[in-house]
Amino acid sequence: MTYCIGIRLNAGLVFLSDSRTNAGIDQISTFRKMMVYEQPGERFMCLLSAGNLSISQSVRELLQLEKIDRGPQQEPLTIWNAESMFDAARVLGATVRRVHEQDGPALRAAGVDFNCTMILGGQIKGEAMRMFLVYSAGNFIEATRETCFFQIGESKYGKPILDRVLTPATPLDEAAKCALVSMDSTLKSNLSVGLPLDLLVYREDSFRTEQIVCLDEGNPYFQMIHSTWGQRLREVFEGIADPVWDGSASAHPLLTHSERHAPLGKIRRPEDRIV
Amino acid sequence: MTYCIGIRLNAGLVFLSDSRTNAGIDQISTFRKMMVYEQPGERFMCLLSAGNLSISQSVRELLQLEKIDRGPQQEPLTIWNAESMFDAARVLGATVRRVHEQDGPALRAAGVDFNCTMILGGQIKGEAMRMFLVYSAGNFIEATRETCFFQIGESKYGKPILDRVLTPATPLDEAAKCALVSMDSTLKSNLSVGLPLDLLVYREDSFRTEQIVCLDEGNPYFQMIHSTWGQRLREVFEGIADPVWDGSASAHPLLTHSERHAPLGKIRRPEDRIV
Repeated sequence: MTYCIGIRLNAGLVFLSDSRTNAGIDQISTFRKMMVYEQPGERFMCLLSAGNLSISQSVRELLQLEKIDRGPQQEPLTIWNAESMFDAARVLGATVRRVHEQDGPALRAAGVDFNCTMILGGQIKGEAMRMFLVYSAGNFIEATRETCFFQIGESKYGKPILDRVLTPATPLDEAAKCALVSMDSTLKSNLSVGLPLDLLVYREDSFRTEQIVCLDEGNPYFQMIHSTWGQRLREVFEGIADPVWDGSASAHPLLTHSERHAPLGKIRRPEDRIV
Repeated sequence: MTYCIGIRLNAGLVFLSDSRTNAGIDQISTFRKMMVYEQPGERFMCLLSAGNLSISQSVRELLQLEKIDRGPQQEPLTIWNAESMFDAARVLGATVRRVHEQDGPALRAAGVDFNCTMILGGQIKGEAMRMFLVYSAGNFIEATRETCFFQIGESKYGKPILDRVLTPATPLDEAAKCALVSMDSTLKSNLSVGLPLDLLVYREDSFRTEQIVCLDEGNPYFQMIHSTWGQRLREVFEGIADPVWDGSASAHPLLTHSERHAPLGKIRRPEDRIV
């Protein structure tokens, strides 16, 4: 499995990926899932991938070579000459379809789903930063102000904190912290997601990779997140009043007095109770 | 979808279920997923169900009638004469298999999975409290000291807080609070889980339902959890230091000085960077 997050903020982009790959629980390996394509000063793109590793590795390799024909008047479209991230996402979609053409029939014959989901974010000179979620069919959607992050892979454990914290106005470092907290929750609950992590923070209009790091068990910041977050979460949890069933002792009774003494039929439909 | 939690503690049992059922996103209904079977003073059992609603409703209905033949010397085994919760879980498994016999072939022909997962917890006089997770095939596993809770349905959003808080020694009201926080995170992130909730707290050796309540939008305790938890979570989040990339200003630098100035090859494999 995999867990990757891409966030598009006003101030820049944040990418975080784990590096665990498993074919069954007894075959676990480490593969990096982040790939950077850049021409410093001109274009910056970061690709995160989830799904079948043979497919995503093929896509990553072929993406730099993929060409979409634009007729005799224009040279073919590539990620290196695309003038918009939308066009770059089209090239990625075409690459996914090329791999599907090559490997899809044999995979289907072997009973293996063609499973590949990717996040492509970046900026091309002359355009704003953009981020896309690309599906197995090569189609894609774009992050917006309302939905400013994408997750791929094992996304559910870590979604609540992203939902609660992220807006387009979130500062870059705070978003990086949020992504790491989200990853920490996922690591804790799902063995198929694992260290090391790749974290990349892109500042608007920088057109190059400036802040990128590989975090393993020894990283002091991630260690701090790991220990502090769990501990504070328990403190907050303990600080919230327990439910009180008698409805009198607490400012937040679980049951009001009248509910407590209501006939059982009010809180259980008769047919739900078989005595 | 559905989200239900069953917790087995030293002090008792906690059950929590949502009530949303959907057949596609455009067909959403409210069905209660908690069912109590009891003989006050003798036996208490609570069943939570997830999966295909037609299957789980049939199982709930037939469970009270199901009999497992024990030969001519003994009367058939039912949930009403079972002397152990293990035997009661066997009766539930047999009921699931009976529904599978009746409906499985037609469902399969219609391309519908036979999908049904249930939590059965309770206590029968003379025995300790026990809790079981029963699968679609009628097989089951039991909660232990190491794994003291089960979740069914949309379980991932709400798992991190359970993982961090629950142990067999957790008091009943604190476990009820924890289940409600877990449910709140799930409600926030997944529309297919919805109010009202059914919460039941069983105290060891009481052999009857004493604390049971249906929580809807108007419940003050759940409202408090809903608003307080999200707010405190953000406060804790803000209280944790942001990563600092220059490695000097913070007690918890994301990058140490040497890492920051390490050649890129150390943090990105050369083949991962295509310039």
